[in-house]
Amino acid sequence: MTINGSAISSENMWSQSVDRSSNELSISGISATTLARDFGTPAFILDEADFRTRALAWNDSLQENFGDNAGTVYYAAKAFICTEVARWITDLGIGIDVCTSGELAVALAGGINPAKIEVHGNNKSVSEIERAVEVGVGTIVMDSMHEIERVAAAASKFGKVQRVYLRLTPGIQAHTHESISTAHEDVKFGFSIASGAAWTAIEAVRKLSSLELRGFHSHIGSQIFGVESFELAAQRLIGLLAKYRDAFGSELPELDLGGGYAIAYLPGEVTVAPADVIPALAKTVEAACVAANLAVPKISIEPGRAIVGPAMFTLYEVGTTKDVTLETGEIRKYISIDGGMSDNARPALYDAEYFAVLANRNSTSTNSNSRLVGKHCETGDIVISEIELPADIAPTDLIAVPATGAYGRSMASNYNHVPKPPVIAVKDGKARVIVRRETEADLLNLDI
Amino acid sequence: MTINGSAISSENMWSQSVDRSSNELSISGISATTLARDFGTPAFILDEADFRTRALAWNDSLQENFGDNAGTVYYAAKAFICTEVARWITDLGIGIDVCTSGELAVALAGGINPAKIEVHGNNKSVSEIERAVEVGVGTIVMDSMHEIERVAAAASKFGKVQRVYLRLTPGIQAHTHESISTAHEDVKFGFSIASGAAWTAIEAVRKLSSLELRGFHSHIGSQIFGVESFELAAQRLIGLLAKYRDAFGSELPELDLGGGYAIAYLPGEVTVAPADVIPALAKTVEAACVAANLAVPKISIEPGRAIVGPAMFTLYEVGTTKDVTLETGEIRKYISIDGGMSDNARPALYDAEYFAVLANRNSTSTNSNSRLVGKHCETGDIVISEIELPADIAPTDLIAVPATGAYGRSMASNYNHVPKPPVIAVKDGKARVIVRRETEADLLNLDI
Repeated sequence: MTINGSAISSENMWSQSVDRSSNELSISGISATTLARDFGTPAFILDEADFRTRALAWNDSLQENFGDNAGTVYYAAKAFICTEVARWITDLGIGIDVCTSGELAVALAGGINPAKIEVHGNNKSVSEIERAVEVGVGTIVMDSMHEIERVAAAASKFGKVQRVYLRLTPGIQAHTHESISTAHEDVKFGFSIASGAAWTAIEAVRKLSSLELRGFHSHIGSQIFGVESFELAAQRLIGLLAKYRDAFGSELPELDLGGGYAIAYLPGEVTVAPADVIPALAKTVEAACVAANLAVPKISIEPGRAIVGPAMFTLYEVGTTKDVTLETGEIRKYISIDGGMSDNARPALYDAEYFAVLANRNSTSTNSNSRLVGKHCETGDIVISEIELPADIAPTDLIAVPATGAYGRSMASNYNHVPKPPVIAVKDGKARVIVRRETEADLLNLDI
Repeated sequence: MTINGSAISSENMWSQSVDRSSNELSISGISATTLARDFGTPAFILDEADFRTRALAWNDSLQENFGDNAGTVYYAAKAFICTEVARWITDLGIGIDVCTSGELAVALAGGINPAKIEVHGNNKSVSEIERAVEVGVGTIVMDSMHEIERVAAAASKFGKVQRVYLRLTPGIQAHTHESISTAHEDVKFGFSIASGAAWTAIEAVRKLSSLELRGFHSHIGSQIFGVESFELAAQRLIGLLAKYRDAFGSELPELDLGGGYAIAYLPGEVTVAPADVIPALAKTVEAACVAANLAVPKISIEPGRAIVGPAMFTLYEVGTTKDVTLETGEIRKYISIDGGMSDNARPALYDAEYFAVLANRNSTSTNSNSRLVGKHCETGDIVISEIELPADIAPTDLIAVPATGAYGRSMASNYNHVPKPPVIAVKDGKARVIVRRETEADLLNLDI
């Protein structure tokens, strides 16, 4: 298989039903041209089967490796959620993690059983907490002393005992290929184990009869390759489980080890598979529990990006091209597409790198040093700073950017009053709108 | 006047009617507590008189210093626009620069005379161009060879002769306190003077009878202090005006020197006033024109941030606080407010720095080393990385962050399904909603 005229080593960036072996890119047999004609550009194209397969793979791996101690796969809604995807979650029988009332509303609109909902957030409002308790969410992950009081008060108000986790910072800063083990983490989230804040929180929760502490939670970072950071976090949380048992004579039954599994954005990069992480994690957890003479708790995880990231690509149309002479005398070809930082903020936010292909035709043209830019009135509105693309790319050509499923549509803005693109779900050779394109009327709808 | 218990040297960050000499912050006599009670938090609070005063100041300065050669003050819509602010623009009689169909729609909804509208953008679509031509916008600033053809075709289609500028890159990279003079600019915008691209574009436009080339445009950057960069750009554009006259025997009547005037975000910083720039610019333009034996063209400018930036602040409520022990042993107080990177992306996008004050009361508490963070599920969701704030700040306190008028609400996202805050205009002791708060129903409205 070739992309942009040259063979590439890995197709991890694309969803399973994307094919570019014929004249143009297709997904589940539907060509890029057909998608652009039927739904317009820019558009997010979501491979439903791919999403479901990835979600189930994480769930199956958890079941296989942890057996009776498998907890819940909570899909991280912040990566991308809409009502239809929430329906898929319902159908798949997995859980979801939400961190605002808005995400909770979408989960409920998609029919997700509240018992399968976990609520996150460093600053949940009182009304958000009350609503979560009232609808009966399975777990609230508590993040501050203020919140412990609030959740307890909400549970009392509704005559319930709310199951809760404590979010802990185990002192591990995991970034992509390396992780740094520290005592303290300078982050807004959680209670520090090392400082004693976690223990203070445990004692506070135990005094409140409307709260049932079920276990601990940690989330150590994003785009993490390898399993070592997760293993280290698990060991530290299990250490605290043992301390809890020693102090109070009972064992907490659950641990949530969060998400952060990396995906490929560029050719040759790797998308972490469940088999790369879960079996090793299961061994580590079991060994640590044996060493501490603890029953293995139920283990939950929170993949988001790893499920939806590769399942979606963005389809753009080229509007203008321009050759710019650099100080070195070299030429850079600027290719402007009809979206940009409003539908993909990650390059501007994190210097995130993306890949792109010519999607509507093959080209036998040589490549040119190109920069893919958006249509916003901002110099920094760059989708891909440097990429080799066929020199004959011209207005009306279609460009596909893979792996935009996570934090693409979910972080989209209306900068420059650009309407947000739709999300098109593709399955079994059929495409349908699951999030409609915003209109100018929508944008003006808030104006008085 | 004191802020956070200590006198500060400059109040340039705040709009004129903001006062904190009494027990709490007020704007046009309305207290922060009243605003929060009546409109909720987070909310953008816009000082209407301040906006109008700043807009008129730029217009008056242009008239006074350029006299008959004063062009138009085009308010840069990308900084912030809504229908009501467009009505103010209409009322003030100044112009507006828009760069998408969405911004054009808002301008028209606010009753702005199309002749006062200038259209920007590196990738205007054919439909955007046709709409602009059809409604009769005053000027289209053309950015690529593709666009020259498109605007000409659109003008022909509607039987019009469209007035246009060419956007040029004069080889000046202006960043805050320094500007770099180069031959070539590695940006997506405009035609390079040095490479000859600008001349090629001029020749192309002259061949098209449906286009009337009125002059040149340049925009050299953002947050620019000082006048030297603008003077250098003007000189280079005037050099090209002279070359044009020499080649074609006629003079182009207009120049647009763009925007980019800096504002204060922190105590002690300066907000550039018209008097800091326009008189010097007028002298430079006149001298350069005399030297080139040219009539002085009509000079237009595009302030955006300089008008709306200091006119607005964001009012947040504190939700949680947390002391985090750093590796050094020091304590950092995390103060979580009920907004964050969804309503102010600039800290995450540009490492932009902001200031904050306790808004609902005075505090005699000592200060503590604080970090103001948002409510999003992201470690990087930081509004202010490091600031001294009263140690007794607690949940339900109100925090005001000044100078959020530009690129705050305009770049807002719905990350984590957080509804966008409203914009509240305050004038003569009265406050009213001009952009309503988004609701969960709005967020779900796009879901199928």
